[in-house]
Amino acid sequence: MSTFQENLEKYAELAVKVGVNIQPGQTLVVRTPLNAAEYVRAVARKAYEAGAKNVHVEWSDEELTKTKYELAPDEAFHEFPEWVAKGYEEMAENGAAFLSITGSNPDLLKDADPERVSNANKASGKAMEGFRSYIMSDKISWSIVAVPSAGWAKKVFPEDSEENAVEKLWEAIFSATRINQADPVSAWQEHLSLLDDKMNALNEKHYHALHYTSEGTDLVIELPETHLWVSGGSVNKDGVQFVANMPTEEVFTSAKKTGVNGTVSSTKPLNYGGTLINNFSLTFKDGKVIDFKAEEGYETLKRLLDTDEGARFIGEVALVPHKSPISDTNILFYNTLFDENASNHLAIGSAYAFCIEGGKDMNKEELEQNGLNTSLTHVDFMIGSADMNIDGVYEDGKREPIFRDGNWAF
Amino acid sequence: MSTFQENLEKYAELAVKVGVNIQPGQTLVVRTPLNAAEYVRAVARKAYEAGAKNVHVEWSDEELTKTKYELAPDEAFHEFPEWVAKGYEEMAENGAAFLSITGSNPDLLKDADPERVSNANKASGKAMEGFRSYIMSDKISWSIVAVPSAGWAKKVFPEDSEENAVEKLWEAIFSATRINQADPVSAWQEHLSLLDDKMNALNEKHYHALHYTSEGTDLVIELPETHLWVSGGSVNKDGVQFVANMPTEEVFTSAKKTGVNGTVSSTKPLNYGGTLINNFSLTFKDGKVIDFKAEEGYETLKRLLDTDEGARFIGEVALVPHKSPISDTNILFYNTLFDENASNHLAIGSAYAFCIEGGKDMNKEELEQNGLNTSLTHVDFMIGSADMNIDGVYEDGKREPIFRDGNWAF
Ligand SMILES: [Zn+2]
Ligand SMILES: [Zn+2]
Ligand SMILES: [Zn+2]
Ligand SMILES: [Zn+2]
Repeated sequence: MSTFQENLEKYAELAVKVGVNIQPGQTLVVRTPLNAAEYVRAVARKAYEAGAKNVHVEWSDEELTKTKYELAPDEAFHEFPEWVAKGYEEMAENGAAFLSITGSNPDLLKDADPERVSNANKASGKAMEGFRSYIMSDKISWSIVAVPSAGWAKKVFPEDSEENAVEKLWEAIFSATRINQADPVSAWQEHLSLLDDKMNALNEKHYHALHYTSEGTDLVIELPETHLWVSGGSVNKDGVQFVANMPTEEVFTSAKKTGVNGTVSSTKPLNYGGTLINNFSLTFKDGKVIDFKAEEGYETLKRLLDTDEGARFIGEVALVPHKSPISDTNILFYNTLFDENASNHLAIGSAYAFCIEGGKDMNKEELEQNGLNTSLTHVDFMIGSADMNIDGVYEDGKREPIFRDGNWAF
Repeated sequence: MSTFQENLEKYAELAVKVGVNIQPGQTLVVRTPLNAAEYVRAVARKAYEAGAKNVHVEWSDEELTKTKYELAPDEAFHEFPEWVAKGYEEMAENGAAFLSITGSNPDLLKDADPERVSNANKASGKAMEGFRSYIMSDKISWSIVAVPSAGWAKKVFPEDSEENAVEKLWEAIFSATRINQADPVSAWQEHLSLLDDKMNALNEKHYHALHYTSEGTDLVIELPETHLWVSGGSVNKDGVQFVANMPTEEVFTSAKKTGVNGTVSSTKPLNYGGTLINNFSLTFKDGKVIDFKAEEGYETLKRLLDTDEGARFIGEVALVPHKSPISDTNILFYNTLFDENASNHLAIGSAYAFCIEGGKDMNKEELEQNGLNTSLTHVDFMIGSADMNIDGVYEDGKREPIFRDGNWAF
């Protein structure tokens, strides 16, 4: 077996055992582009070996997506098959685990009509609302991992041949996910326990607000009264541990929906549904985006913010040190799974229900009453930098450093 | 554009314009293995250009199927996702057209437990019963075309390298489907009108029975009182023409369920769900298989005949001359789509409702009352040979030749 084959096997095993942590008799649902077929086959073998009853794969194809945006009539983008959405809900209800494989070309829909993209996102967001509630409340085990497409690899390494670019991107992924360590599974257990230490420390502090300052950013984010900091390691409703993002370097909670004020600037490009939004800033008043700018992708950002009422509020506040295995690669990945884990970030849109006490059992109205934002969308964007300072502010105004010069201050 | 690319485009156009004959605003559903991705992309472009609203692709992967048979627990083969079956029915109800791409490795499940294969076929047959009724009554437009997999190509051309075998199989497919003619679409129209001539002649004869004789075969098949001969060109409930099999060389009708007597021998191997059944014979009394033999695949044949009560009766009687563009290739395809169109054949299982007058509007009970067989399964098998004679027998016992020495006698 070649080194690459060995790494691919380890990476499949990591997704199955640590990512979704498949349990005997469980169904594994894999959502993947065609180009990840070789990896998906390895994942299926590992899943059956771990006792999975069935591996159900939902394939997609970048070329077909592009063709549809080029040639289909407008009405096609207002529809999403109801039966597919119902199918996802049925599988979630029956306790399946969900593995998503990311890695599409960040420029795939660069030339597509942004209105079509936005309509398609709205239609799928609405149809998949029921399924997404299983994810957003961690009722089920779910995980996201990445597999390079040629288009993505060439975006990250434009100077290289396609073959070399893909190879380099695989190496970067194996390094960021600790696959090239002797025992990736135990390396991950150690890593997750370090993240848990930060999470526990922040939960003990119980800050009233965070104050972010750096070039282009001066932002105060209040936290919900009953907020909980959460780390990369999650637990589903049956008590099974899983890791939703691989890699993950973040400790995160929810913003108080109406408690965000000031301006924040992006520090990395954001790949949203096949289009890049770059060098943008958002200005908030009482939680709501009241002004925004973007040097690239303004129209796409505007449509994202107009998805629904909740798309103008913040749903996630995530702390990630500037120094991390991913930052150390010094690669701009143009893929949120990686870029968000190399940078402090926020998310526009829906908050995770488990970020407040008892939130997993609350309905939408109760979540909103407790200060959480709800929306059809949830999009992370990167705001971290080497000069970023963050203060934790207590109820009485007392403050102390959380981040200094981009890294943990404690 | 290379010759191969040109042929692939023509083949895609043929499937879209003649096969399913897509109509403006219609959805095209494509069921395909991963290895046909390039062809599917061409089909999607042609479909959108012809006005399709959406192209929905359901992918499958031979490797994953094989892995499942090797590693999944027994109970996995008793299940078929209900929501998928419902989805197919919903798309059919909304008037979608269905294109299936065949071409899997005939030996794919050679080593799989036949009980697992039979359970899986039963589970999917049962779940998809509602959808299949749209197909069996031609309510919707549907078509089957073939794309070579490496495994299939190597089975047909075992002496060649994988690359050469695939290339040769493509050539054979392009030749059998008239793609290498200057204007395949009009070549098909001409061909279909010749088949219609045979159909019309047989419908005027209104035979009471057919009597087959050749080495290993002496079989009498009565036809239903109101039987209709049908050719490769079909018409859906909205009056849109389509061609269900490409290639097609057959003119066919239904047997009278209880009117089949004698013995028939297979003349080509039958690829059933990834296993080959070879050199087999069936003996009938009053329509029912009362004895059977098989040199290869006996267990698989037995399980096929045990699918349900209707799996022991004949549902289709198809006439195909021994001399045809497919026979002329002198290739044994190990794929029913091709082999059945180079040979007289019968089908075990369900009859097509449109093979009797008014059948499209009848329910299962009414079809049975009118002499048609119903079953969860429908499997064609080849019985034609160079020495086959077929007589048409009238109500009064008078008889006349339909086939002599394997070819049309009129
Ligand atoms: Zn995050
Ligand atoms: Zn997020
Ligand atoms: Zn037939
Ligand atoms: Zn048939």
